[in-house]
Amino acid sequence: MSGSTDVEAAVQEVARRARAAATELAVATRAVKDAALAGMAEALLRSNADVLAANVRDVSAAQAAGTPEAIIDRLRLDESRVAAMAEGLRDVAGLPDPVGEVVRGSNLANGLELRQVRVPFGVVGIIYEARPNVTADAAGICLKSGNAVLLRGSSSAAHSNAAIVEVLRAAAEAAGLPADVVQLVTGEGHEPAKALMRARGLVDVLIPRGGAGLIRSVVEESTVPVIETGVGNCHVYVDRDADLAHAVAIVLNAKTHRPSVCNAAESLLVHADVAEQFLPLVVPALQEAGVTIHGDRAFQEYDGVAAVTDEDYEREYLSLDIAACVVPDLDAALGHIRRFSSGHTEAIVTGSQAAARRFTAEVDSAAVLVNASTRFTDGGELGFGAEIGISTQKLHARGPMGLPEMTSTKYVVTGDGHLR
Amino acid sequence: MSGSTDVEAAVQEVARRARAAATELAVATRAVKDAALAGMAEALLRSNADVLAANVRDVSAAQAAGTPEAIIDRLRLDESRVAAMAEGLRDVAGLPDPVGEVVRGSNLANGLELRQVRVPFGVVGIIYEARPNVTADAAGICLKSGNAVLLRGSSSAAHSNAAIVEVLRAAAEAAGLPADVVQLVTGEGHEPAKALMRARGLVDVLIPRGGAGLIRSVVEESTVPVIETGVGNCHVYVDRDADLAHAVAIVLNAKTHRPSVCNAAESLLVHADVAEQFLPLVVPALQEAGVTIHGDRAFQEYDGVAAVTDEDYEREYLSLDIAACVVPDLDAALGHIRRFSSGHTEAIVTGSQAAARRFTAEVDSAAVLVNASTRFTDGGELGFGAEIGISTQKLHARGPMGLPEMTSTKYVVTGDGHLR
Repeated sequence: MSGSTDVEAAVQEVARRARAAATELAVATRAVKDAALAGMAEALLRSNADVLAANVRDVSAAQAAGTPEAIIDRLRLDESRVAAMAEGLRDVAGLPDPVGEVVRGSNLANGLELRQVRVPFGVVGIIYEARPNVTADAAGICLKSGNAVLLRGSSSAAHSNAAIVEVLRAAAEAAGLPADVVQLVTGEGHEPAKALMRARGLVDVLIPRGGAGLIRSVVEESTVPVIETGVGNCHVYVDRDADLAHAVAIVLNAKTHRPSVCNAAESLLVHADVAEQFLPLVVPALQEAGVTIHGDRAFQEYDGVAAVTDEDYEREYLSLDIAACVVPDLDAALGHIRRFSSGHTEAIVTGSQAAARRFTAEVDSAAVLVNASTRFTDGGELGFGAEIGISTQKLHARGPMGLPEMTSTKYVVTGDGHLR
Repeated sequence: MSGSTDVEAAVQEVARRARAAATELAVATRAVKDAALAGMAEALLRSNADVLAANVRDVSAAQAAGTPEAIIDRLRLDESRVAAMAEGLRDVAGLPDPVGEVVRGSNLANGLELRQVRVPFGVVGIIYEARPNVTADAAGICLKSGNAVLLRGSSSAAHSNAAIVEVLRAAAEAAGLPADVVQLVTGEGHEPAKALMRARGLVDVLIPRGGAGLIRSVVEESTVPVIETGVGNCHVYVDRDADLAHAVAIVLNAKTHRPSVCNAAESLLVHADVAEQFLPLVVPALQEAGVTIHGDRAFQEYDGVAAVTDEDYEREYLSLDIAACVVPDLDAALGHIRRFSSGHTEAIVTGSQAAARRFTAEVDSAAVLVNASTRFTDGGELGFGAEIGISTQKLHARGPMGLPEMTSTKYVVTGDGHLR
């Protein structure tokens, strides 16, 4: 208990330093912030050897602990991954500064000048899992949007993250910003992250990045406002009026282009009227691409199709698996999506204007696509530049979150002695 | 424990009905919603007698319980208050429909059509205190923004709220909407509100309206995303370069125009260079208006000024009291505000462009006013029409929340077979 209180006090102290740094960063010009980002990129490349040496320590410890190779691969850095981090920081420098943007402005009847202006949140906490590149990516996006960042990575990447943060802090300072605009929340076990979740008033927003378990625990335990990201149980619905060649290509792309990410398709719904023509096309196409189909009776007519359960419909596989069923009509597809979707991305393939209109109006997800792969729900693809994650909640931001989504606003009202 | 579980199950059932109603309401046209609002207004006027009879029961019970007259006054309805509720519903009908508004739209390089469109949250919970007029106001704003609403008023207004909700539900149904777009969360004690706070996934957003204690408890206990509203420890800073006649008028207006509301001024800061001229003007003006000044040494030179403490600087008086002190310069004023402000509204009175620029840039509050009374931080005054409350948090909405702030967005992306 006293250990936990010590951790809490330490995290609050780090958060207080972040607040002080945030006050300076909030009024920093774009020129200063871009110079800091460029300096960070350069410093990362220059300190390549130190960062890689720290990473070797993390990788060796993970290997000694018997960590699976897939997770070690996410942890491992090499020259090209460090170069990609540096490139990411330069890209953020190239994006417009969201801070100061006038979102709304007018003169009121009584002559008051009203302006709604973008401002930073202040202090942003990021809680994330293995990949050390998130350290640099998140720091860059937060810095450009004027937010001081508290980074809580996984203990397995502790040495790598510490080395990266040291480089970033020195570069921020060299550019004239307080080093504390970027800080690592250190310490063993779950307590530091939990202290971060309880630091209401000291931390303005918390963004978890990682698996469903991490996100659920942050959402449930945090008293700091949270932006929920990333869990995607995405559906592709092939309508009666679909171009079936497009439909096969979209299903394949959505499922197999990169199965491990949140905008990959996990469920396929097929209108009964086209099932007889479409299943003979899509089943072999998916199977040739190595996909295991978990299907209803209609799909089970085909060799190698496993029987689907409600658990399959609920799952975010993140693997070469797909749940599949035939639905009697568009209403049934909408009902299935309402029941099982995680609200990330759903796609319809249809030539019917009426079906597209109903689907886009009635599906309650962050992104609804017509005749396009679910893989397009991505900040880069939609032209937003760098993205901190994909929000699946309805408050504040929904869908890919770029720089503007990392800000709040304030009203500036100017008069000359106005009274009510 | 089993009692609490029953309450939880009952609230979840009400929330499920709200979700089903919300699915229909989300795609209702503006014409249908406006007809429902007009019907609700008419029905309230027509059912005047029933509503007032129910209110008499609440008022009598409160009187029998020895409730203070000030609170009974907030609880009491009469013909003109019912008429004001009806008028409020008609005003909301007159406002533009936020749902369907295209917030951002472009065609991407690959020909994909990207549209970010306003959509309702879905199910909104409102937890509020004595005033029964909130029942009609909140229902109207939620209906127009396409949200089903769960209303949890105070038990002291239970009969009044039940009578009003019955009228509103019948009118919604008569206009072709499900009655469950408006529901009351009933039951004794704190359990129903707590069940609402735990209904994550069933309720999309929770908005507490009431005193600081209510808001704090919702913020701390809720797993449903919360929009924090209303606590205002607002400052007026009179700068060295202020027009002192304007300054006196602004301080008086901000403090005395309506002392019980969140945008009333609670603290006065005066630049040392003008203290000698300004205090002889502002102290008698405030005292003649019946204001008790809690001042520092400079203010205590005047008769009737009480000694100020840090507790005074922290307080939202909501009464004819004001904390007051002389500060050496603008930096000290900014530091004082950083330390004590609740982030609602702060005003500077100054003729200096440089001081105004620094104040508006560095004060981190929902609204920052230059040469105008803090009383302007109000949805009606700023031209937003009806307002559900004033957000003092940074996530989602900050400042007065009108209809657009009661919506989320989704991305609609249209292609013709687009793949990554």
